[in-house]
Amino acid sequence: MADSELPTRPKPEETPAAAAAEGAETKGPSKSALKKAAKDKAKAEKAAVRAAQEKAQAAAADANDTAKHLYGQMPESEDVLPTTRFTQIGDDQYEKEITVVARVDNARVQSAKLAFLMLRQQGQKIQCVIAAAEPISRQMIKYTGGLNVNSIVQVTGIVKKPQTPIASATLSNHEIHIQKVYMISEAAQQLPMQVKDAEKPPPETSEEGFQTDADGAPIVTLKTRLDNRVLDLQTETSQAITWISHGVTELFAEYMIKSGSRWIFTPKLVGAATEGGSGVFEVKYFKRNAYLAQSPQLYKQMCIAGDMENVFEVAPVFRAEDSNTHRHLTEFTGLDFEKTFHAHYHEVLGFAENLLVFILSQLKERYADKIAIIQKSYPKAGDFKLPKDGKALRLNYMDGVALLKADGVDVSEQERFENDFSTAMEKRLGQIIREKYDTDFYVLDKFPMAVRPFYTKACPQDSRFSNSYDFFMRGEEIMSGAQRINDIKELEASMRAKGLEPNQEGFEDYLNAFRQGCPPHAGGGLGLNRIVMFFLGLPNVRLTSLFPRDPQRLRP
Amino acid sequence: MADSELPTRPKPEETPAAAAAEGAETKGPSKSALKKAAKDKAKAEKAAVRAAQEKAQAAAADANDTAKHLYGQMPESEDVLPTTRFTQIGDDQYEKEITVVARVDNARVQSAKLAFLMLRQQGQKIQCVIAAAEPISRQMIKYTGGLNVNSIVQVTGIVKKPQTPIASATLSNHEIHIQKVYMISEAAQQLPMQVKDAEKPPPETSEEGFQTDADGAPIVTLKTRLDNRVLDLQTETSQAITWISHGVTELFAEYMIKSGSRWIFTPKLVGAATEGGSGVFEVKYFKRNAYLAQSPQLYKQMCIAGDMENVFEVAPVFRAEDSNTHRHLTEFTGLDFEKTFHAHYHEVLGFAENLLVFILSQLKERYADKIAIIQKSYPKAGDFKLPKDGKALRLNYMDGVALLKADGVDVSEQERFENDFSTAMEKRLGQIIREKYDTDFYVLDKFPMAVRPFYTKACPQDSRFSNSYDFFMRGEEIMSGAQRINDIKELEASMRAKGLEPNQEGFEDYLNAFRQGCPPHAGGGLGLNRIVMFFLGLPNVRLTSLFPRDPQRLRP
Repeated sequence: MADSELPTRPKPEETPAAAAAEGAETKGPSKSALKKAAKDKAKAEKAAVRAAQEKAQAAAADANDTAKHLYGQMPESEDVLPTTRFTQIGDDQYEKEITVVARVDNARVQSAKLAFLMLRQQGQKIQCVIAAAEPISRQMIKYTGGLNVNSIVQVTGIVKKPQTPIASATLSNHEIHIQKVYMISEAAQQLPMQVKDAEKPPPETSEEGFQTDADGAPIVTLKTRLDNRVLDLQTETSQAITWISHGVTELFAEYMIKSGSRWIFTPKLVGAATEGGSGVFEVKYFKRNAYLAQSPQLYKQMCIAGDMENVFEVAPVFRAEDSNTHRHLTEFTGLDFEKTFHAHYHEVLGFAENLLVFILSQLKERYADKIAIIQKSYPKAGDFKLPKDGKALRLNYMDGVALLKADGVDVSEQERFENDFSTAMEKRLGQIIREKYDTDFYVLDKFPMAVRPFYTKACPQDSRFSNSYDFFMRGEEIMSGAQRINDIKELEASMRAKGLEPNQEGFEDYLNAFRQGCPPHAGGGLGLNRIVMFFLGLPNVRLTSLFPRDPQRLRP
Repeated sequence: MADSELPTRPKPEETPAAAAAEGAETKGPSKSALKKAAKDKAKAEKAAVRAAQEKAQAAAADANDTAKHLYGQMPESEDVLPTTRFTQIGDDQYEKEITVVARVDNARVQSAKLAFLMLRQQGQKIQCVIAAAEPISRQMIKYTGGLNVNSIVQVTGIVKKPQTPIASATLSNHEIHIQKVYMISEAAQQLPMQVKDAEKPPPETSEEGFQTDADGAPIVTLKTRLDNRVLDLQTETSQAITWISHGVTELFAEYMIKSGSRWIFTPKLVGAATEGGSGVFEVKYFKRNAYLAQSPQLYKQMCIAGDMENVFEVAPVFRAEDSNTHRHLTEFTGLDFEKTFHAHYHEVLGFAENLLVFILSQLKERYADKIAIIQKSYPKAGDFKLPKDGKALRLNYMDGVALLKADGVDVSEQERFENDFSTAMEKRLGQIIREKYDTDFYVLDKFPMAVRPFYTKACPQDSRFSNSYDFFMRGEEIMSGAQRINDIKELEASMRAKGLEPNQEGFEDYLNAFRQGCPPHAGGGLGLNRIVMFFLGLPNVRLTSLFPRDPQRLRP
């Protein structure tokens, strides 16, 4: 029972067939079971009589139904009509007949002669009306107004201009007057939550279930939304967020490919927990153990040693950290790159800065409509500010320390190179830099060697520092990178200085790569989910993952 | 010792520092240890005297060395020279000075006044000559001819036309006359294998170590090559194969993005082994178990239920099958897509056929030079044949059965729907189709329902068959796909018919997605490594993975 520790949630109603199957598992009938069986039989007979009566009534009604071919289950023989997407509906469609396929967002019978249907397509909504007038029957109106919410239907009708704009619809100046309505996929009568209730951002508390907003309307907690992620993905905001995630990935790949970089796939199953055992997931691998890679770091460097010169990867990254915060996931998408340089690691740093400026500015250009949709739900953070001159702002780490110190922050540990910035310091620094430089994206270079991993190249001019950098968005880190040591002796010495033994199991292949000659190189690893989160100013990283994983959550 | 079951391989020579560190771990000195220490001390003293003598001699030589600033360790202050790539060297460079950064493929001293250097850049080779003539000294010639193979050097010199073309070089009509040579990254004197020995395809037997070809030259087994994969990646053939892998991925993403598809990332850590326990890797997930996803199947369908309409994924796929064959990996790259359709699943099938025709024809167009390089090593399979009219050949499964039967193959099991084709049958069918239709790429549609997974939609006209298809290259399957059942009742019935219990743990979230309404959809999953393997006609799928994983191999 892998999921037994997860909080329970409303179970779907059991189907009679499922119940029967369960019953079939008992081995032999007891006395009480026999009594129950007799009772059940009587019940079943009554039900059969009732069903026969209903069928007869329905047949009688059917006989009177002038519209019976215009609604109900989609007929197999129905000619395929070209369908119109909501985004294509404009003023030129008034008085024209169109066919749409969409979800039922809401359905209600107004009277025996009038019903309304709100249809939804990827969050966009349009109202439909059905009124009794030859050949449309009362049965068809009842059927339409009684459709289960979230069912997928095909509607054919005439586009009209409503007398007053329909405030609750996205397409408020268009209305479809229904002629035909067919069921494509019927949703259950009971849904664990309504998609429209998930359109509002979740409350900041993480309490179970539903809460109400100031107007008494229900708002759904993040937990309920993630438990029912398929419904949650149907909201206009979720749809837009998944497009931003798509956009970042596409722009990353586009930029890397244009630079001549090679797309690589490094193994996620690795033989040793080289990056520290605590944060690593262990896997049963036939008769021994394997581990899930925490990053492609060692492997992308081995590709560089393998003369691949310029490589990138888009792949899952696994972190077995028991961190239950708004910004930690145990599985996320890493956008990694590694590149040789000729004379100075700033060749690669400049490349990476341009990469991020490209991604962030193109997001604004290509996805302005999606960003606007998301900002309706999450307006707090405001527009993401990019440097006006199109060049990334680059400061040294110690400049950051000085800015914080001038602001009254205690940076004594940082001045002594004992610790990297805390999250609070980083956020404060983000505010200071925004005020001073008017940008939400910036780079810190030359981190102290003491706070960086063993493979980081020390600064040749001052060995207290290193040729390493972090990228920040709104004061939160989205990338870490550095020049890597490419000399075997220097690398072994650096390992020892960090308390690692080069002869330790798991490092052999990595170190051999340098014994066999390796060009100077640098690179970095971006967190896709963090870029999306901070670009949009979302309150929780889980909103950026289709099916988020954290220490508590392994489903859906 | 995760790697203890792997066969051992030559260990790198231990450095004195490493030996000292090991020594330091013993707790207290024994008598024999003290004796050894005294001996070591004497040895060290002798060595110190010898080193001092050598230093004095070197200083004396240095004093006479007219070229000492022209070679050796790359000087820090050296002005950065623009470097030329081998691919840029043409006839217009004769008599011009260029600077290149490359590997030493071979170095030899011909005489005290002449040495040769073969340089290598991503498999391409050029010969360099150094001759004693002011200011070049004998010391510089000795240094150049004695460079360790595989070291990375920066060479400056004049491009000359050699008197006779240099057969062993890729650039046989160009030669660099060395003026300067600096060390960028020195390789160890002993390498576990020579890159040039790995240029030849591995022998078909998998015996350990080295073998010799008909001319007595060493050929390296696949095992040795994969054990030393970083060196193996440096060969011209490996470089070209990794470019084909890049190309397939890029073309897949390009086509999907152009079609309006959304790039998704579904979880690899899942809560239950829904696809059958035997082929699934188990992961320790905090205090419970998780599993590695065998495919994104259920999740990409949930994205469709989440109204995403058209999605694709590029991600690792994990299979815990103990198959030790030339075509099985435990971790490979999956190229997946899933798409809604309006009237018929052939809308999606046609889309997928065009996708493959696009990928395979564009590979030929964009990567003709890489394909030619690979064919030098692996000529056997010949050019990959695509349908001349640019349209995929589509047959029904039963057409395939008939073709085999006409060829004299026993297909009685297939005629009774008891079994899918065996691998041998598929290969034979590939030959028959190549002869008959002149294509190496084709599609089989309408597989028997009995041989497909539970989520496959039965054929509405004949329920013995299903709306499912496989794609083949050179008679081997590269993609499996189908229309999926999108009706909850039909899905539950199909599960039961396949012996699966819908109430079983792990299916709840998946089935709920259909209870909440889901549009008709179809899709498929491609194996990147198989496409590369069969397109190029490679003998082993491991050649298509940077760092392959199989039941025996977890490293490098």
